[in-house]
Amino acid sequence: MAAANEGFRALDEKSLVEYIKSTPALSSHLGEHLDGLTVKEVGDGNLNFVYIVVAPNGGSFVIKQALPYIRCVGESWSMTKERAYFESLALRQHGSLCPDHVPEVYHFDRPMSLIGMQYLKPPHIILRKGLIAGVEYPLLAEHMSTYMARTLFFTSLLYRSTLEHKREVAEFCGNVELCRLTEQVVFSDPYRVVEHNRWTSPYLDKDAEAVRGDNDLKLEVAGLKSMFCERAQALIHGDLHTGSVMVTADSTQVIDPEFAFYGPMGFDIGAFLGNLILAFFSQDGHAGQGNDRESYKQWILKTIEETWNLFQDKFISLWNEHKDGNGEAYLLSIYNTPELQVLAQKKYMNDLFHDALGFGAAKMIRRIVGIAHVEDFEAIPDASKRADCERRALNCAKMLLKERRRFQAIDPVISAIKEIAST
Amino acid sequence: MAAANEGFRALDEKSLVEYIKSTPALSSHLGEHLDGLTVKEVGDGNLNFVYIVVAPNGGSFVIKQALPYIRCVGESWSMTKERAYFESLALRQHGSLCPDHVPEVYHFDRPMSLIGMQYLKPPHIILRKGLIAGVEYPLLAEHMSTYMARTLFFTSLLYRSTLEHKREVAEFCGNVELCRLTEQVVFSDPYRVVEHNRWTSPYLDKDAEAVRGDNDLKLEVAGLKSMFCERAQALIHGDLHTGSVMVTADSTQVIDPEFAFYGPMGFDIGAFLGNLILAFFSQDGHAGQGNDRESYKQWILKTIEETWNLFQDKFISLWNEHKDGNGEAYLLSIYNTPELQVLAQKKYMNDLFHDALGFGAAKMIRRIVGIAHVEDFEAIPDASKRADCERRALNCAKMLLKERRRFQAIDPVISAIKEIAST
Ligand SMILES: Nc1ncnc2c1ncn2[C@@H]1O[C@H](COP(=O)(O)OP(=O)(O)O)[C@@H](O)[C@H]1O
Ligand SMILES: Nc1ncnc2c1ncn2[C@@H]1O[C@H](COP(=O)(O)OP(=O)(O)O)[C@@H](O)[C@H]1O
Ligand SMILES: [Mg+2]
Ligand SMILES: [Mg+2]
Ligand SMILES: [Mg+2]
Ligand SMILES: [Mg+2]
Ligand SMILES: [Mg+2]
Repeated sequence: MAAANEGFRALDEKSLVEYIKSTPALSSHLGEHLDGLTVKEVGDGNLNFVYIVVAPNGGSFVIKQALPYIRCVGESWSMTKERAYFESLALRQHGSLCPDHVPEVYHFDRPMSLIGMQYLKPPHIILRKGLIAGVEYPLLAEHMSTYMARTLFFTSLLYRSTLEHKREVAEFCGNVELCRLTEQVVFSDPYRVVEHNRWTSPYLDKDAEAVRGDNDLKLEVAGLKSMFCERAQALIHGDLHTGSVMVTADSTQVIDPEFAFYGPMGFDIGAFLGNLILAFFSQDGHAGQGNDRESYKQWILKTIEETWNLFQDKFISLWNEHKDGNGEAYLLSIYNTPELQVLAQKKYMNDLFHDALGFGAAKMIRRIVGIAHVEDFEAIPDASKRADCERRALNCAKMLLKERRRFQAIDPVISAIKEIAST
Repeated sequence: MAAANEGFRALDEKSLVEYIKSTPALSSHLGEHLDGLTVKEVGDGNLNFVYIVVAPNGGSFVIKQALPYIRCVGESWSMTKERAYFESLALRQHGSLCPDHVPEVYHFDRPMSLIGMQYLKPPHIILRKGLIAGVEYPLLAEHMSTYMARTLFFTSLLYRSTLEHKREVAEFCGNVELCRLTEQVVFSDPYRVVEHNRWTSPYLDKDAEAVRGDNDLKLEVAGLKSMFCERAQALIHGDLHTGSVMVTADSTQVIDPEFAFYGPMGFDIGAFLGNLILAFFSQDGHAGQGNDRESYKQWILKTIEETWNLFQDKFISLWNEHKDGNGEAYLLSIYNTPELQVLAQKKYMNDLFHDALGFGAAKMIRRIVGIAHVEDFEAIPDASKRADCERRALNCAKMLLKERRRFQAIDPVISAIKEIAST
């Protein structure tokens, strides 16, 4: 423990300034006059400390530091600060594959578990907050489908050789503590009695109990958990909910990949789509004062539909572009006719679609009956109204998890969501 | 390359004696009088050099050395000698889990890529040779099912924690060159035109061409290849054909796990069963001189059936024994009723069965139309007769690969094999 913490000290707004002054990779972004720096801690996330640093000349960056525990729980729930290392690796790799949608990393200090990165300036806000406020982002589906298609395709065996793949898989096995946290809070705790689970009680008591007693659901979850633990399909973000995306009308930026590792692609796609579905079901709780949110709900559903369809198109385009590259999975000498290529791609995308629906559903369930809830619902003050929204989301998730294989496209999923919403 | 080969020299029967004399971990097995040592190179395998060392007092061991290329091809096909390191790790881990069926490792020298291990004395012979000779091994199914159940169960997430799992997965990612070889010779080359492919020509020319033109088959193979590359389910042997098993009437020993890594369990089970099916289809080529091999063929089929059924029983028994252990996959607090446990086990075993059939079939196909053939067929001198045997095996494999999901138990698989044999 002593060795692991060598060279580490937790910074605060004051000591951070000294750190910046002695770190050229950071201070070089701020011009001459470092004395007028403003430093503000803004970490609203669950795990880490985030500081916005702005200099008088307008230069700026963000500093994110991981402490050896989970911020929102406290020192009692320890968590390796090495997560910052994997976050920096993922930001850099995903950033080089998709620079338009990932903040640039300026500096990484491993002993300090400290990342210096591009400040995503106002009006950037966290997407989840925009969704709660009812703001439409016309480019969201376009941007997120690009981000997911590029980061997932280029880190998979559709593009990579086996040599590159196994080297990277081995490296990211080091992020095991974060994987273990996901295993626990996504795939285990919602399905058993544990103290830190919570839900809108007493309204959802029976619903939470039903989740714990649903054998079909638990068998499906076991399959998804195995896939999460065992299947090194691509370098996934690992925490791609709507709180890990910052947006303006024309910019979409993905932050916070500290859970990154080689896992199933469907986990990222599902996280994003599942959180959009949660946002959809929460809207009735935010309706009022002359805004029934009906047209906004339509926009969310359209965004879900477009995100998947655009993702699919872009992913297949990348595959076609690189089909004679180093990718080990589908060698051109074997999958050697247009007809066979189309069949292979259809099968691949169909499996991936079912994975995404399954993982998305699991992520929805855990936000309703597990430890960590989402502001989309938490911001609904009336508990009974909130419970009604949550119950519909939960029923939708249970259906998707158990019946996902009957869906062959996103349209019927949208129809099914609408139907549940009307109950 | 210089650094990688530091401390390495390829031994021969003479220099090996000097090496032994200066290595107490070896010489201690041989008593006082090292001058009367007999050393004999017996490597009949494809990749490495194997020496049997016997001292006048009866002390003995086997020395296996990996050279930085593939023995049967020559220096033109280079292959990391680090494979010996992974072989030694796997021998030790599998050996500690199943000492009755794995030779003991006495010594490992990493720079020399040299393993010293227990000599499996005569009458031990390679199982494949026994199968060609028509010898029955009444304990084979019992022993192999124990070996597979124990090595696979205890290295999977049914027994292991995520921390142990990811650490081991990362380590065995280092055996990437051997994985890549399997990807090429099992999952790729048989399905495309490459120079080193061969088959009993001209008899099987059309059959080999049909394999390369079979879209359904190639789609199924892609799925299996993905699973092989991506799914870290357990520490598998990686080359568990009947040439990696040495037997007597009452002993069964598994050697040669140099392809070991964290992969899908079905790959091992399928390798063993698939090679038994090859042995079955080769029998007609060895019939004659008053032995029609009919009862022997029945014994092989019974062994296939018993191996799977015993494996399944033993694997589930281990699961039940350890269901409240550290295994991450099925937590007792979630899978908390006997009914649900049975459902989970049935689903798991059914999926594993289909994986085994698929991988077994892929291993059969590559032995008929790929680079490396099996003695079971090669020992049939009459090419036309050999081709008839091989064609039936190939048809069986194609059927299993494409239709494996319709089999819910081993019995109907046996019936299907019999039916193809009667064509
Ligand atoms: N590059 C950035 N630019 C602007 N704000 C950021 C940036 N990175 C993080 N933030 C702010 O800090 C908050 C927490 O960051 P995040 O990386 O999600 O930390 P955590 O891992 O603790 O969840 C974000 O919700 C966002 O408001
Ligand atoms: N422990 C042992 N005891 C007796 N014979 C052995 C032993 N290990 C290997 N052999 C003999 O050497 C041959 C080649 O060994 P193997 O490990 O299969 O090498 P390769 O990796 O080259 O295939 C085996 O077929 C067997 O005849
Ligand atoms: Mg965050
Ligand atoms: Mg950028
Ligand atoms: Mg985070
Ligand atoms: Mg061998
Ligand atoms: Mg070998």
